[in-house]
Amino acid sequence: MEPLIGSVEAGGTKMVCAVGTGPDDIRDEVRFPTTAPGETLPRVIDYFRTWQAEHGEAIAAIGYGTFGPCDPHPDSPTYGWVTKTPKPGWSDTDVVGPLREAFGIPIGFDTDVNGAALGEHRWGAAQDVATFAYLTIGTGIGGGIIIDGQILHGLIHPEVGHIPMPRDPAIDPFAGTCPFHGDCLEGLAAGPAIGARWQVPATELTPEHPAWDLEAHYLALACRSLVCTLSPQRIVLGGGVMEQLHLFPKVRARTLELLNGYVQAPQVLERIEEYIVPPGLGNRAGAAGCIALGQLALAGAP
Amino acid sequence: MEPLIGSVEAGGTKMVCAVGTGPDDIRDEVRFPTTAPGETLPRVIDYFRTWQAEHGEAIAAIGYGTFGPCDPHPDSPTYGWVTKTPKPGWSDTDVVGPLREAFGIPIGFDTDVNGAALGEHRWGAAQDVATFAYLTIGTGIGGGIIIDGQILHGLIHPEVGHIPMPRDPAIDPFAGTCPFHGDCLEGLAAGPAIGARWQVPATELTPEHPAWDLEAHYLALACRSLVCTLSPQRIVLGGGVMEQLHLFPKVRARTLELLNGYVQAPQVLERIEEYIVPPGLGNRAGAAGCIALGQLALAGAP
Repeated sequence: MEPLIGSVEAGGTKMVCAVGTGPDDIRDEVRFPTTAPGETLPRVIDYFRTWQAEHGEAIAAIGYGTFGPCDPHPDSPTYGWVTKTPKPGWSDTDVVGPLREAFGIPIGFDTDVNGAALGEHRWGAAQDVATFAYLTIGTGIGGGIIIDGQILHGLIHPEVGHIPMPRDPAIDPFAGTCPFHGDCLEGLAAGPAIGARWQVPATELTPEHPAWDLEAHYLALACRSLVCTLSPQRIVLGGGVMEQLHLFPKVRARTLELLNGYVQAPQVLERIEEYIVPPGLGNRAGAAGCIALGQLALAGAP
Repeated sequence: MEPLIGSVEAGGTKMVCAVGTGPDDIRDEVRFPTTAPGETLPRVIDYFRTWQAEHGEAIAAIGYGTFGPCDPHPDSPTYGWVTKTPKPGWSDTDVVGPLREAFGIPIGFDTDVNGAALGEHRWGAAQDVATFAYLTIGTGIGGGIIIDGQILHGLIHPEVGHIPMPRDPAIDPFAGTCPFHGDCLEGLAAGPAIGARWQVPATELTPEHPAWDLEAHYLALACRSLVCTLSPQRIVLGGGVMEQLHLFPKVRARTLELLNGYVQAPQVLERIEEYIVPPGLGNRAGAAGCIALGQLALAGAP
């Protein structure tokens, strides 16, 4: 029997806690707002305690996928912390410590997007490749990267939303929403940027609106940047904005135009529709990813 | 006794062949122009044959670092080939095959920059880190990337010179030299781009020339892009352009400005002079890198 894993998706606005063994076996799920850590973390603990008591079953590990930045390095003194974040109250907050103390079980910890990437690798759209990138385009833009089957951390963890982007003010005078960089990828192409640029929430724009060609252009620039830097075997684009599935053909076509034949791989040139793809797990990607992080911890990753 | 390795740096304009065991023990070196493969590869073979005969010593393996693009995947049918390249005569050329046939010893094969990165990891400026990027800024711009001690290949291999770059035509009207992308990193910041923009060879520009502030700006954008994508523990900048050592303080300062405090790592914020560094091997980086590729092949990597 597969061990039961507790899943915590810690988003900037809401927490999603779940219990399950994988994307096809999520047994329970609750959502509540992300408030101060002193209120939110006890609520997470209480959820898993209550669930175990009510079901008479023990959770074997917990996977915690968090908004960034965080410290995912097990050998660091601040491992398991949310580090310097603009989110009020959460800077330098140990989130793994309280969970370990409460349950005494392995706690997996990483960025939400690294978790989602791992979930896509285990069960979703990237099962057959070893090296790929997962981007989520929603209220922000984040990237999780798997290299030879392992989550990439490096110095801290990737922050793909903040790569510099070319912007032609004659075509797009919108200066971007990022408080740090203005017109970085996130500042130009996340959901709030689309809404602010066109003065209409992104979800209310019809598929014919020119907003989507511009959006596809920026996402294709991001894909070209990823291709040239990481040489991924696949790029998975998820998040709320990518639920506009009509974006995929546009992003693929524009990526080929922007690469302009430079990368001579049949996977890109001949099969782009299998190269830039939606997540295989759909809206279960978040919970599944955290379950995968918990499984990793249970298997002995620290 | 360390086994003797043959080193082949295959550049677009010249070949450098050497014999040695590491950067401090390069016993011989020759240079000749890169012409057609049917002329160049026999000349490489002849060099090693003659060297062995004259010295009565056997070379145990050869490391071949090539201009790109190439196929560095051992399980591919075109492994060891230079693939589609604008360089006349070299498209789809098997370079490993003739060497294997001539010598019957292990042949290491990769891009020249992946070789140089491996050399810097083994003997140079990146011995104490596991994940880093090596950029060479010369007649072109290339990047070698090491993740957890292993060369990153992914789909093919990185082509960091071709990442998209923001360019403000009001500040820099020069449209770039890249035949594929115009104003990509290589098109804006490689040596020939500097020369074409200012109508003076880069080597003749004084350190006070405004060319270098603009160059530092583009290289800093590249560093920010690398930091946000790979989260490297160090960035090594090599190649002919970086022999202008006055560029380093400018690139470091501009990288910090462009990151704008977003990446809260002391390695970046407090010790940038140890984060963005010149190669430790100087002008031996190329030969040493190819020796490292040969050692890798000898150790059993295919």
